[in-house]
Amino acid sequence: MKKFPNVGCYSYVAEPFHCDFTKRLFIGHLGNHMLNAADYHSSDRGYGMHFLNSINRTWVLSRLVIEMDELPSMYDKFNVETWVDGVIRSFTSRNFKVVGTDGRVFGYGKSIWAMIDTESRQPTEVQKVSNGIVMDYIETDYPCPIEKSSRIKIGATAPLVASIDTHYCDVDINGHINSVKYIEHVLDIWDVEWYRKHHVRRFEIAYIAEAHQGDQLKFYREKLANSDQKEYCVRITKCNSDGESEVCRSKILF
Amino acid sequence: MKKFPNVGCYSYVAEPFHCDFTKRLFIGHLGNHMLNAADYHSSDRGYGMHFLNSINRTWVLSRLVIEMDELPSMYDKFNVETWVDGVIRSFTSRNFKVVGTDGRVFGYGKSIWAMIDTESRQPTEVQKVSNGIVMDYIETDYPCPIEKSSRIKIGATAPLVASIDTHYCDVDINGHINSVKYIEHVLDIWDVEWYRKHHVRRFEIAYIAEAHQGDQLKFYREKLANSDQKEYCVRITKCNSDGESEVCRSKILF
Repeated sequence: MKKFPNVGCYSYVAEPFHCDFTKRLFIGHLGNHMLNAADYHSSDRGYGMHFLNSINRTWVLSRLVIEMDELPSMYDKFNVETWVDGVIRSFTSRNFKVVGTDGRVFGYGKSIWAMIDTESRQPTEVQKVSNGIVMDYIETDYPCPIEKSSRIKIGATAPLVASIDTHYCDVDINGHINSVKYIEHVLDIWDVEWYRKHHVRRFEIAYIAEAHQGDQLKFYREKLANSDQKEYCVRITKCNSDGESEVCRSKILF
Repeated sequence: MKKFPNVGCYSYVAEPFHCDFTKRLFIGHLGNHMLNAADYHSSDRGYGMHFLNSINRTWVLSRLVIEMDELPSMYDKFNVETWVDGVIRSFTSRNFKVVGTDGRVFGYGKSIWAMIDTESRQPTEVQKVSNGIVMDYIETDYPCPIEKSSRIKIGATAPLVASIDTHYCDVDINGHINSVKYIEHVLDIWDVEWYRKHHVRRFEIAYIAEAHQGDQLKFYREKLANSDQKEYCVRITKCNSDGESEVCRSKILF
């Protein structure tokens, strides 16, 4: 990355117990690696979560798209490269490239992160932190050739296909349900038989609200009609004493 | 590890998205690291799962104990050291030491693995593989000062405390429910409020039978009466068209 010093590069191995029954890395574990790489990249440049927490700010993942030609196989060594290619008010756009140590490109990701005030939970301006330090590390020339996240539309009558309770192991360092857990729960709507014949080509998720341990999550699914491909939208809601409200929307292309 | 060449040493970081709300590594992720370290250690020495599968053999985890003084904090760098300290017929005894790169000892683990024939699913003699290669790497002098796993007893009337369905993301490379998922599900019996005040000092699990995606898991819990400590036993059963049968037993000391 000498030519692109604003791109961070973090090494991983597709560890056998992070792989599914086809001996390929679980998308959930890949997503976790991406989130960790994002944290390292921002921490290395002075605007990581750890520093932000000290000034009552934090990063909240707002959207994530993962588009893979293939997933790393068991024991494959690969890098997650990540860089920020834009900032608008309280949002940064962060890209990912997943590439084998032999140079083979597995796929890409795109994400949107909001900077929020940890007390008010309201968005705050990215450029007001440390004299706009984030702007010093923008990289717009390194390619990320996938479509950015779209606005996911799902009908009000999409049928309920799963309900799950949330527990201690679902909760992340911020005290909320871990972003990656939603991805895993969405993928779990389909069973092992399905995954024998299909693989995920593109996975998109938009985070709308936070859920907490004890909330029940409900999953509503709709197949896109005007598509000759196998493409689905999923709405996730949380149910608690305040009633039912939307927390995420996801779109999956097999 | 120059003095102990039979001990493998594998480096990890307590990645932020592998940590719980107290910003300490999840025991489930630590367990996954241990299983991966075991696979690297055995593969590096010519008796790993990948080789064994080529001769219709595999390793199956039979028992695991994890005993921690403390868990690594977010961003801590640590090593998982692992070595085999004994072989009896179809079983090997494998130890773990979790140690910070600064030398601080976080805790230890002990495990028992069975070598089985992948077709008959029956135990086979470890010493018959590659002229007893496993015996060439036994290490008995490196200390692992925790009690080995005990026989876990749990009454027939222990009450049902949780039921969960199993899905695609629960299934490992061997097509069975991942050993670590049981650990997470057991820990999930207690809620975030409990973990604000308690931490796991010792976690023991014995694997009795394999479960498959689609099986429903049921969790029965009993508090040990003759103990002034907070110690619990948990029985896990699977329910499918063949009825209900035991798959694991676990013991947790807080």
